[in-house]
Amino acid sequence: MDLTASTAVLAAATADAARLLPAPALGGVLLTATAEGLAVAAAAPDQALRLERPALVHADGEALVPLRPLAETLRALDAEEVRVVVEESRLVVRAPGARFALPLMDRAVHPPVANAPPLAGSVGGRALRTAVEAVASAASREDALPIFTGVRMWTDAEGLTLLATDRYRMALATVDWDGGTLDVLAPATVLSGLARGFGAAPSVVLGADDDRLGLAWGPDSFVTALLAVPFPDERARQLARAEPSGTVELEADALAAALRRASPYAGPRGTVTLAGWDGELRVLSSDPRGGESEQVVKAGVSGCHGSSTYQARYLLDALKPFAGRRVRIEQQEGLRPTVFTAPADGGVAVTYVVVPMRV
Amino acid sequence: MDLTASTAVLAAATADAARLLPAPALGGVLLTATAEGLAVAAAAPDQALRLERPALVHADGEALVPLRPLAETLRALDAEEVRVVVEESRLVVRAPGARFALPLMDRAVHPPVANAPPLAGSVGGRALRTAVEAVASAASREDALPIFTGVRMWTDAEGLTLLATDRYRMALATVDWDGGTLDVLAPATVLSGLARGFGAAPSVVLGADDDRLGLAWGPDSFVTALLAVPFPDERARQLARAEPSGTVELEADALAAALRRASPYAGPRGTVTLAGWDGELRVLSSDPRGGESEQVVKAGVSGCHGSSTYQARYLLDALKPFAGRRVRIEQQEGLRPTVFTAPADGGVAVTYVVVPMRV
Repeated sequence: MDLTASTAVLAAATADAARLLPAPALGGVLLTATAEGLAVAAAAPDQALRLERPALVHADGEALVPLRPLAETLRALDAEEVRVVVEESRLVVRAPGARFALPLMDRAVHPPVANAPPLAGSVGGRALRTAVEAVASAASREDALPIFTGVRMWTDAEGLTLLATDRYRMALATVDWDGGTLDVLAPATVLSGLARGFGAAPSVVLGADDDRLGLAWGPDSFVTALLAVPFPDERARQLARAEPSGTVELEADALAAALRRASPYAGPRGTVTLAGWDGELRVLSSDPRGGESEQVVKAGVSGCHGSSTYQARYLLDALKPFAGRRVRIEQQEGLRPTVFTAPADGGVAVTYVVVPMRV
Repeated sequence: MDLTASTAVLAAATADAARLLPAPALGGVLLTATAEGLAVAAAAPDQALRLERPALVHADGEALVPLRPLAETLRALDAEEVRVVVEESRLVVRAPGARFALPLMDRAVHPPVANAPPLAGSVGGRALRTAVEAVASAASREDALPIFTGVRMWTDAEGLTLLATDRYRMALATVDWDGGTLDVLAPATVLSGLARGFGAAPSVVLGADDDRLGLAWGPDSFVTALLAVPFPDERARQLARAEPSGTVELEADALAAALRRASPYAGPRGTVTLAGWDGELRVLSSDPRGGESEQVVKAGVSGCHGSSTYQARYLLDALKPFAGRRVRIEQQEGLRPTVFTAPADGGVAVTYVVVPMRV
């Protein structure tokens, strides 16, 4: 293997690989040079990544080397181009006045990088990123039950819908879908990690088999194992069926700023109360030891409203998908959930549901 | 107490107080409003801080309140001005549409904020910041022996000299001094934390008594307890007496960049070798498992040089005070220390000494 390539392009590709697969098998990355360019591939027991990048290939070949030192070396180089050559038992990275030699690892003990599952259909890259970022925040990060760490993705007449819940809140986002049927439960953290990458591509191709989901955008692809557990669909859907006793519409950012200012007074449980609903929304927090806060946010109000208490950070997560826009908040009686919605934006319709707390 | 003040000014003052005194007595800050403005004071068992800020005072008075929530509230407010008023058992912070109430703490149980030690002399703010930042990096952060966490500061005919060492490296900086004698051992982390603040002032007034050092700049002041341990002066001074077998001069930043690129190959001990010294400096690192690196940095060389091995991070610390400038590196025989110097810049002369490693 012998090639010349842009340092910035290779640095970005290896940095992406290290970020998306923090613990690849043997800590290694597989480089494959062909007439078409350079493929950067890495695999973990339940994930696989493949990126293709342009390179001037002087001699075909492949090399398995430690991913992190390669990524660090490329990131720190200020030369515009690098030469990457296999020399005996080393992969050598050369730039003017500098030579870095990484030990070649044994290709035979590295697990094969699996093929992608069969194609199901495609979706806009930016729309899928928006949907994933809106929904993933409602998934639990470290729940004992894996279902609450997943994003359910399914297709129907409305398009591709993503749904996640950790029991206390739930988020749904629907995007336009072009293709056949898909119905999977994928890890939320994996989808979030990929969102920046596929968000820049015009379209993302999705495919699945019984236990894997594949995503491909431009020359890049990622395969992840599915969470093989039944999702509480019916209970989740019930959460989203609102019979609002009253609604309020306001700037999401104005309410988020007020919630952040209320947090120092929100006590050990981090709770705030939304109240008043009389041409304005009152944001209240109080703690016997920490003091009290009271703020007024301008809002359009209709119907009859009481006051409800929430975890401040859940409300902040619920407002994030509506940043820079007006959001509609539908409050229901008693401890029935509060629903955050807005008209579809950029082909993505988001609904966020937060369960109030017993006071 | 009742006053109106700029939100940004009060937010910056309380943020500074929270940064410089992360654990003030009872978690509190003492606000004192007089015709002259607002004083923000905090005390810990071995430290005290006082900042004075302009405010339009409607009624004199003082209030002891929790520092952190006050700082957070002021930071998050977007109103240009705040009204700060004592109302019964609360300190109330008001802005349009918002009211925040902090519980008043019992002034009687708060330790008194001590007066500053007597004045010894003064030094330029920017010069002292440069000297502190150059020297503090050579102090240990968590040594069992407190002497290695301190900065020795003393005056003589050359000016005010700061010195710190953790045994493996040592840094000295001398700045112009206007005043009497001073000879103290102060905690390095305290001086580093203050450097950004006093670095912006035209001059810093220093004073000391038997067990405290006081620093005052503009309307602000800080008092810290001294480290009451004998400093190994004679041994430290010996380190700085170089009999170089050869010297090399080069751009500090070029060598620092090469050292960072060598780090992934520097093995578990993080060592690099400087070698060659033949119109150029070679930077080498190698590790049986991680691979090898070799880089060339342009340098002016005189005398006879061998190769020496160092901890890469010690070299990076040694180069930092010379960033953006050429540095002179004096190498000595065997394991005798290597000396980094440059002509005085901005009234500050820095010498950094690093002991090579046995290979």
